[in-house]
Amino acid sequence: MRDFTIISVDDHLLEPPDLWQRWVPAKYRQDAPQLVSLEDGDHWRFEGKLEPTVGVASSLGKDKTEYNVGPLRYSEMLPQCFDPVARLADMDRDGILASVCFPQYPGFAGRVFTTATDKDLARVCVEAYNNFIIEEWTGAAPGRYIPMVILPLWDIDECVTEIERAAAKGARAIAFSENPSKLGFPSIHSSDGHWDRVFAAAEQAELPLCMHIGSSSTVPLTADDAPYTVNFTVILTNAQFALADWLFSGVLMRFPRLKIVLSEGGIGWIPWLLERCDWVWETHGAWTKSPLQEPPSEYFRRNAYGCFIDDKFGASVVERIGVDNVMVESDYPHTDTSFPNTRVKIEKALAELDDEQAVTKILRGNAERVFRFAPSGLGQR
Amino acid sequence: MRDFTIISVDDHLLEPPDLWQRWVPAKYRQDAPQLVSLEDGDHWRFEGKLEPTVGVASSLGKDKTEYNVGPLRYSEMLPQCFDPVARLADMDRDGILASVCFPQYPGFAGRVFTTATDKDLARVCVEAYNNFIIEEWTGAAPGRYIPMVILPLWDIDECVTEIERAAAKGARAIAFSENPSKLGFPSIHSSDGHWDRVFAAAEQAELPLCMHIGSSSTVPLTADDAPYTVNFTVILTNAQFALADWLFSGVLMRFPRLKIVLSEGGIGWIPWLLERCDWVWETHGAWTKSPLQEPPSEYFRRNAYGCFIDDKFGASVVERIGVDNVMVESDYPHTDTSFPNTRVKIEKALAELDDEQAVTKILRGNAERVFRFAPSGLGQR
Repeated sequence: MRDFTIISVDDHLLEPPDLWQRWVPAKYRQDAPQLVSLEDGDHWRFEGKLEPTVGVASSLGKDKTEYNVGPLRYSEMLPQCFDPVARLADMDRDGILASVCFPQYPGFAGRVFTTATDKDLARVCVEAYNNFIIEEWTGAAPGRYIPMVILPLWDIDECVTEIERAAAKGARAIAFSENPSKLGFPSIHSSDGHWDRVFAAAEQAELPLCMHIGSSSTVPLTADDAPYTVNFTVILTNAQFALADWLFSGVLMRFPRLKIVLSEGGIGWIPWLLERCDWVWETHGAWTKSPLQEPPSEYFRRNAYGCFIDDKFGASVVERIGVDNVMVESDYPHTDTSFPNTRVKIEKALAELDDEQAVTKILRGNAERVFRFAPSGLGQR
Repeated sequence: MRDFTIISVDDHLLEPPDLWQRWVPAKYRQDAPQLVSLEDGDHWRFEGKLEPTVGVASSLGKDKTEYNVGPLRYSEMLPQCFDPVARLADMDRDGILASVCFPQYPGFAGRVFTTATDKDLARVCVEAYNNFIIEEWTGAAPGRYIPMVILPLWDIDECVTEIERAAAKGARAIAFSENPSKLGFPSIHSSDGHWDRVFAAAEQAELPLCMHIGSSSTVPLTADDAPYTVNFTVILTNAQFALADWLFSGVLMRFPRLKIVLSEGGIGWIPWLLERCDWVWETHGAWTKSPLQEPPSEYFRRNAYGCFIDDKFGASVVERIGVDNVMVESDYPHTDTSFPNTRVKIEKALAELDDEQAVTKILRGNAERVFRFAPSGLGQR
């Protein structure tokens, strides 16, 4: 009987409606994000702008035929979407020991605050989210959540300060953008090493950068009239773009202990992409003056992690990717979630992997190492 | 000893400098594309616009360190780039029985002519290219080339006329765009079935639509300052976008005998993408009102073909893709080419495939079927 206790490195919380009202200092309260209920559903209001909640952010209690992209209503939402204690029963049912949760409303890397006019307010909102995720969300169920923070991406000094502050408070990961250039910032290729102090601080604090598909707030659109089914498929290529960017950027050469996690991109394409990257480096590395000293795939093996929810093909070739470089996700409570069948799906997907040690690494061992998570509750299970 | 005679379904010709001058009627000659030699290299001139030739379009006689994207000079180019007879020696050396060649200067689906102001002239130029590829290029070495034509994409009536005309002359394939919407035309999803008559004519004439990466004249750009190595890697995702578009569009349901070929996209990602497509269809098909009657992967099995140059991982999972759905390429004479090691590379890549019949299908059997090519020269080899 295999032990299928799982650490899911990619779940989502829907922010409690009063999150910022409770977590920003009083003088910012009026200007901090507030949830407002409109005719079509709930929206977040911040600096006079409305951002609708998103239907596919919660699948709980819904039939597939009821999914939609329109706004949700918190009043109709199951509490485990936004309540860390209510969520534990579903985690127990699904075999999830611990969960890394991405933010929802601010975007998967905090885009909303990067667009704020009042950057002092925005920084306060980032700190508020981070205090919330560490103290309230993770604090509500010690040993069951692994806190991931967002950054004030518009200011490198403030990023470094926040990384150090959050790390000291117990943060275990950073939600970084798969492509900062799409958010209006310099890319990771920037010739002046724009992000280097952020990467150095993350490396120093041992916080992996988790880059969720969509965290560039850009998705490939094949055509304006392409059906959603195409969009839901090709959005996963964002992880391919991000991996190619990182492997060829030279960042992982300069920061050898920095870890990057590709969240929700699937893994079945990874062996193919690594082979392609190595081939491109061998063929085009010289004339393009690539800075890399080793083949791109070497940086993957040392620094990067692929993650899968339900990727039978990917799981079947996991040894080609590297059993030390793969982690699992449940994507709860999004419509992509494997809940309540996460354990069953992953067990099936890894059925042909005979190496018990490898299975444990994929299920939780790699996550324990990457997120420096000591599974205190594990003995009780 | 395996028979490693290959049909390469994706090579490239560089148009002879006087192609259009010789193949358009006299009254169009002055306005048809001409090659002009400038200080930095050769450019094509058409309707007053200059389009530079592209360095990476020819690797012949160059060391990897000499590759570049700047303009070429025909006077310094080896004749096998633009001479179908001179090319035969290299094909013999590389085990290539027959070759499907894409156009170069007009773009892989004839983009240049779609942007012409004078559409009568543009149509004449398309016909001229098609007459050239069928009569001159293919005619120069019967049994060694499989002629692929381009279309006057801006006019559906003219497309249909040209398909019928070219088919009657012996065309065996159409170079179609992986994404017509990026060329300014309706997408294949267009609700009024914009392309349906083209698809019907291609189906009727039994001409597969070959969609080369880049044939939308769009490549994913992760960042303005991303190195070329990233671009050369992620351009292959265009094939993933195209496949998702086609599988979800419903076109392959409406045209069950239409064949699509994904040129130069590699194959290692296909099992992963098909699984993702099926999952998306099962999960999101209902509320998005997907027209598909079968899972997307079924349309792949029936209508689509992946192709690889040098994709060891992809070749190792070829049975997961379907041995009836894969063909091989040499990409001669581009810098991605496997020449002069095509046979060796493909033999190595397929070394673990024990099924001789499957190997033959991949090397040439599928191509013979898809392109209706009778290998008359095969017995002499």
